[in-house]
Amino acid sequence: MTEPVQMQSPHGEALGIVTHDNPTPRARLTVPYAEHLVGDPDSGVLHGGVITAALDNASGQAVRKHPSWDTEQMMATLDLRIDYIKPATPHAELVVEAECYKITRNVAFVRGVAFHDSADDPVATSVGTFMLGTRSTPREAGSR
Amino acid sequence: MTEPVQMQSPHGEALGIVTHDNPTPRARLTVPYAEHLVGDPDSGVLHGGVITAALDNASGQAVRKHPSWDTEQMMATLDLRIDYIKPATPHAELVVEAECYKITRNVAFVRGVAFHDSADDPVATSVGTFMLGTRSTPREAGSR
Amino acid sequence: MTEPVQMQSPHGEALGIVTHDNPTPRARLTVPYAEHLVGDPDSGVLHGGVITAALDNASGQAVRKHPSWDTEQMMATLDLRIDYIKPATPHAELVVEAECYKITRNVAFVRGVAFHDSADDPVATSVGTFMLGTRSTPREAGSR
Amino acid sequence: MTEPVQMQSPHGEALGIVTHDNPTPRARLTVPYAEHLVGDPDSGVLHGGVITAALDNASGQAVRKHPSWDTEQMMATLDLRIDYIKPATPHAELVVEAECYKITRNVAFVRGVAFHDSADDPVATSVGTFMLGTRSTPREAGSR
Repeated sequence: MTEPVQMQSPHGEALGIVTHDNPTPRARLTVPYAEHLVGDPDSGVLHGGVITAALDNASGQAVRKHPSWDTEQMMATLDLRIDYIKPATPHAELVVEAECYKITRNVAFVRGVAFHDSADDPVATSVGTFMLGTRSTPREAGSR
Repeated sequence: MTEPVQMQSPHGEALGIVTHDNPTPRARLTVPYAEHLVGDPDSGVLHGGVITAALDNASGQAVRKHPSWDTEQMMATLDLRIDYIKPATPHAELVVEAECYKITRNVAFVRGVAFHDSADDPVATSVGTFMLGTRSTPREAGSR
Repeated sequence: MTEPVQMQSPHGEALGIVTHDNPTPRARLTVPYAEHLVGDPDSGVLHGGVITAALDNASGQAVRKHPSWDTEQMMATLDLRIDYIKPATPHAELVVEAECYKITRNVAFVRGVAFHDSADDPVATSVGTFMLGTRSTPREAGSR
Repeated sequence: MTEPVQMQSPHGEALGIVTHDNPTPRARLTVPYAEHLVGDPDSGVLHGGVITAALDNASGQAVRKHPSWDTEQMMATLDLRIDYIKPATPHAELVVEAECYKITRNVAFVRGVAFHDSADDPVATSVGTFMLGTRSTPREAGSR
């Protein structure tokens, strides 16, 4: 239903994150299972940091998909909260979706979900805020 | 002041995270700068997900260092909030410290900080909660 | 569409919170505007703490409405994150809804929204986790 | 050690919050125990919303005490996370302290703690971010 597009962040590539060209307002990524993403070698469960990185990525992409977003703007993650609902299933691909549900002049509000089969049976959920700014007045706050 | 010790998580190794044997109750990690950890190739700034993964790692280690923690217990990240204060400095090593400031029968409360030179000038801060449980009654919730 | 029911918490009564008997899985409260709930006397805008208290209340009620919830269980708020999207409108009633989207043996995960006219135009949103336990083994963690 | 000063918010007055003129950079409030603040009439434990309102208040005051804060600026709570560590003790006064540990051009970062006897034995802890702006360009986001 969605077609893979190029991923540009070096760390996103190292994680193997694939961005999909989702026709809805939601951003959609997939993370194929790989040994170097494992947090617990006994169980083979993905590291929480992988899930968080993918949720952070998807959240940023959701802001860029919002109709009110000006492509000249700078954007920086201000804060992110992740709730870990259940362990990721070993050897299963992780799907991550996010939507920007509100954008003001300075702040974008985003929620995300990571899952295998259905967003209604999540591995993790997230909420985050992103600072927006002009390139001539770069933000001090932010992670990128 | 602190001596590097072996890192066991495959994803931690892929990120190049080094665990230090800190004599204080705080857990201490370092993340040497590397190209595959970059979020923005133009600026060379680390990906937010790297910082989050390191804060999550350090937070878990802080729980294991707490005197009330029973080594037979299972532990799982329940939730984590990251505040991104300023971009990481390109080419600089990231230092991450965490402390478990309260542990109850079921939950451990942890705060963390990521920085270059001083914890008083943070790149990011975190708070998180971890579920604790017995091996015979494994948690359903959690990321590991 | 929903019929007011009795509110039992003294602080909920002091705030004037009205619980509605919503036929859906979502809990629904309303907070009629009142002078003693104001945070900024110049603008007449509600205090953020009122919004948070109502979101906390609605979140707890959402857990109690979940089909997996055992009425014999104890419940305690473990943590709550509130995002404030826009100021509440002075003199307008606040509506607060919450849903428990996942429940495990020990933890319930809840999201909430506060608004005037439509949940799609929120004043604030929330996510929270609640600890569940048996009455014979009361939790140490928790706010009630 | 600290002397009570006038409290100006109507809701703060309704809660009975007392602001203290703390000589340190930390803001300090107290909330005397009162029946209308109770969440659970069986136990007499304070409602979580009271603790949150007090932490939100103290956090805002901590921003105003920061040397980099321009008194002409507008301020609005952007988001707040509360961790509830243990129930408040019935009939005991609640003490709430907060410090603004970092301020950038647009955002202030604050942490807070609520306790009875010692900040090292907390009832609840908080982290929050506050948007800063000029009066001529008021924020859209925010709770006050």
